[in-house]
Amino acid sequence: MSTIRATLYNEFVHERKHESVRNVYPDGIHQAIAAFLRQQPDIEVQTATLDQPEHGLTDEVLAKTDVLLWWGHMAHDDVQDAIVERVHLRVLEGMGLIVLHSGHYSKIFKRLMGTNCGLVWREANEKERLWVANPNHPIADGIDRFFEIPQTEMYGEYFDIPTPDELIFISWFEGGNVFRSGCTWRRGRGRIFYFRPGHETLPIYYQPEVQRVIINGVRWAAQLSNTTVTGITNTPNVIEPLEPITR
Amino acid sequence: MSTIRATLYNEFVHERKHESVRNVYPDGIHQAIAAFLRQQPDIEVQTATLDQPEHGLTDEVLAKTDVLLWWGHMAHDDVQDAIVERVHLRVLEGMGLIVLHSGHYSKIFKRLMGTNCGLVWREANEKERLWVANPNHPIADGIDRFFEIPQTEMYGEYFDIPTPDELIFISWFEGGNVFRSGCTWRRGRGRIFYFRPGHETLPIYYQPEVQRVIINGVRWAAQLSNTTVTGITNTPNVIEPLEPITR
Amino acid sequence: MSTIRATLYNEFVHERKHESVRNVYPDGIHQAIAAFLRQQPDIEVQTATLDQPEHGLTDEVLAKTDVLLWWGHMAHDDVQDAIVERVHLRVLEGMGLIVLHSGHYSKIFKRLMGTNCGLVWREANEKERLWVANPNHPIADGIDRFFEIPQTEMYGEYFDIPTPDELIFISWFEGGNVFRSGCTWRRGRGRIFYFRPGHETLPIYYQPEVQRVIINGVRWAAQLSNTTVTGITNTPNVIEPLEPITR
Amino acid sequence: MSTIRATLYNEFVHERKHESVRNVYPDGIHQAIAAFLRQQPDIEVQTATLDQPEHGLTDEVLAKTDVLLWWGHMAHDDVQDAIVERVHLRVLEGMGLIVLHSGHYSKIFKRLMGTNCGLVWREANEKERLWVANPNHPIADGIDRFFEIPQTEMYGEYFDIPTPDELIFISWFEGGNVFRSGCTWRRGRGRIFYFRPGHETLPIYYQPEVQRVIINGVRWAAQLSNTTVTGITNTPNVIEPLEPITR
Repeated sequence: MSTIRATLYNEFVHERKHESVRNVYPDGIHQAIAAFLRQQPDIEVQTATLDQPEHGLTDEVLAKTDVLLWWGHMAHDDVQDAIVERVHLRVLEGMGLIVLHSGHYSKIFKRLMGTNCGLVWREANEKERLWVANPNHPIADGIDRFFEIPQTEMYGEYFDIPTPDELIFISWFEGGNVFRSGCTWRRGRGRIFYFRPGHETLPIYYQPEVQRVIINGVRWAAQLSNTTVTGITNTPNVIEPLEPITR
Repeated sequence: MSTIRATLYNEFVHERKHESVRNVYPDGIHQAIAAFLRQQPDIEVQTATLDQPEHGLTDEVLAKTDVLLWWGHMAHDDVQDAIVERVHLRVLEGMGLIVLHSGHYSKIFKRLMGTNCGLVWREANEKERLWVANPNHPIADGIDRFFEIPQTEMYGEYFDIPTPDELIFISWFEGGNVFRSGCTWRRGRGRIFYFRPGHETLPIYYQPEVQRVIINGVRWAAQLSNTTVTGITNTPNVIEPLEPITR
Repeated sequence: MSTIRATLYNEFVHERKHESVRNVYPDGIHQAIAAFLRQQPDIEVQTATLDQPEHGLTDEVLAKTDVLLWWGHMAHDDVQDAIVERVHLRVLEGMGLIVLHSGHYSKIFKRLMGTNCGLVWREANEKERLWVANPNHPIADGIDRFFEIPQTEMYGEYFDIPTPDELIFISWFEGGNVFRSGCTWRRGRGRIFYFRPGHETLPIYYQPEVQRVIINGVRWAAQLSNTTVTGITNTPNVIEPLEPITR
Repeated sequence: MSTIRATLYNEFVHERKHESVRNVYPDGIHQAIAAFLRQQPDIEVQTATLDQPEHGLTDEVLAKTDVLLWWGHMAHDDVQDAIVERVHLRVLEGMGLIVLHSGHYSKIFKRLMGTNCGLVWREANEKERLWVANPNHPIADGIDRFFEIPQTEMYGEYFDIPTPDELIFISWFEGGNVFRSGCTWRRGRGRIFYFRPGHETLPIYYQPEVQRVIINGVRWAAQLSNTTVTGITNTPNVIEPLEPITR
């Protein structure tokens, strides 16, 4: 079992501005997520935040990252375009990416999806129930038919994303909405997992089922092949004939 | 039968620079394509070129465009980012987009795919045979099991695109390669069709089967629904509860 | 506009056995559905029932059917296997098929899906809200973000189907479940649409939105191409070399 | 690393009838495949043949099978329907299935696909080149851009299958055809991989790249989750309300 090198990006703005957020995540959402990932024997974690040089996502860091987790909300626009391009290229090269909750509006997610990733939403601390729609998927491992989040922000359809390669969870919300809450896509050689739960004022990342899915997601997104394939960079790629051309 | 308003963008650079291209497409590739589209009773065509103000793709033009066809090759980088954003938004709103041949590397296609759209290629005037992989698709209407292009530039796998929603044609090349030559995707409310054939020095757009597929593609991409759905712009979209929330 | 020839199969057993069903559908569910389809200028309708010779689905009838709609519930097992095979072959040849509600357990649907098509269910006359997950799809034409059914039987995930080619509606249920209520697949040259709503004791097929979706579905499933492709029957298909083989 | 229990079914008819086949596979194709699988430390192999009681696929055998490999050609019709049903149910429950070459016409593959799985074919001992169309897939692990089979039977499009969940290999044939040669689907909780290469009179299963892909496929298809999901049997599944129903 080789070790998975996870890097956790959190914009880390809410936690500094709002006591209500600090009360739930005193060291930042990234530390709460890093804590349960670090308990896994096969996962190493480092963190990165917006205020660090290059947002903590230097070439060196990304070169040693198997899976990047992304949490952002109010400071999406403050992420530098050059860093987004760098992360984008690394995903195409094979780095896994897990986008959490409000990361649906991050530059990197929109860049990879090609859509604007809009949705409808509501803050009413309502109940959510996530149903498994793909029971043999490794990301749903350990989850029964469904699990519940007692109080959550609602995200609802229409969710403006490309058709997912795999749809793993569909959420039911007390207030009458539904949402494709767990979706995967392949882009280049990289695996992408979007997972909806998580809100800065609610203790959702302390919930065992949510932690289990994120851990599963890290393992799934890290699954690398050793194939040698070019043609995934921007350099055109001329190839000589493999068979005689008779004209 | 309502009329489909097609707009045909051609960068129109090759034709002015190279006599070899002018010999094949004396008025530009756009005029060759426009000519056969105009013979269809249900299709109106206007053209746009790189050198026009706003590349001919003004808000007014796009607002009256049901399907945009895109041909570009050597001047992809000269297309202004603001125009790309404008076209992108119109696709998400429901405008169809047909990307031809070397348009795989256009800014708008890469923007919509989220990948770099690389491939391998070769100019050897070899034979291509396009096999139908989805025989009931409207875009393959009128095409038998396959059709051939006597001399073509080769594009080969790996083609770095998201998994197509529909795979319609797979090409065989004399020199030993294969390619997913006809692919569709949905992005937002827009339909996208990538069609490989076409090269500036070869009379491919005069071939009846190629014309038939492009005409089919225009009709397919123009299929609009009248649904009223918000959430495809960048404005978040708050929704009131539809059911009582008891907590 | 050519006319679409729809055939509506109803097992027509409930209506004869139970007054509660007769009260809602006095002439049978098939007559209620046929009535609104017949109001469309482009749709012709004939009906077929289990008790007819060959269940009303003779070779002659199927040869003149562009789209078959299927309603069955308690008598799935009474449908003869030979008729199922006949319908199956016609779907592969290009006939559209719309499977309604409890038809998820019909022999023909399970035959086409390759899974057992199980689900969870509950009869509690609860509210259902169908959200549009694919707003530009012709089957969602005329439907806003969602529509509601005031009282319905519940069908819930996990729904044991192959990943749909297109997911059009996701249902929210008052009792806490979700369901992929509008799904499409292609099999051979045929288009298949599964649509969940409908129950024998509730007036769901009189609801305008439900009728609209079924009408849309008939038009979508009837969309034929004229391509000539063999290889979709059980006869193996030898092909001569198209290129010289040098060994 | 837990051990994967593979069972290899071979109809084992060709080898007994034709010396030309015996010359290539003296102990049967199943023994050639079993031999290289057995060299893997994580794979255990048992074999099953048509002439055994219950074709060697008893309930006991299947209960202890993580992945079933299927080779058949001339005796598809001799496989008992009851055994096909048994295998089908096990796939829906989570057993992996790898269908090789002419197994495309086996009862079990057609049962799972819902189509007739037709194709065009030719025996001319021509060259095949399999291109990787999904470079990060575990099944393509260790394969470069492509690999070649010097002499092969040709299978060509149109291949009448449902759209694969994943398309991994596309074949180029010397004689002018193409084929989707490596495809995956999920059915119920089971993973299915179809892999085209292999012919009874050619030493294809001795080729390292072919062996590598089959080994990769066994590992991929064996990936089980521990989720507890019902609803994949034919028993309907009533569920109590999870939320209050107010009507």
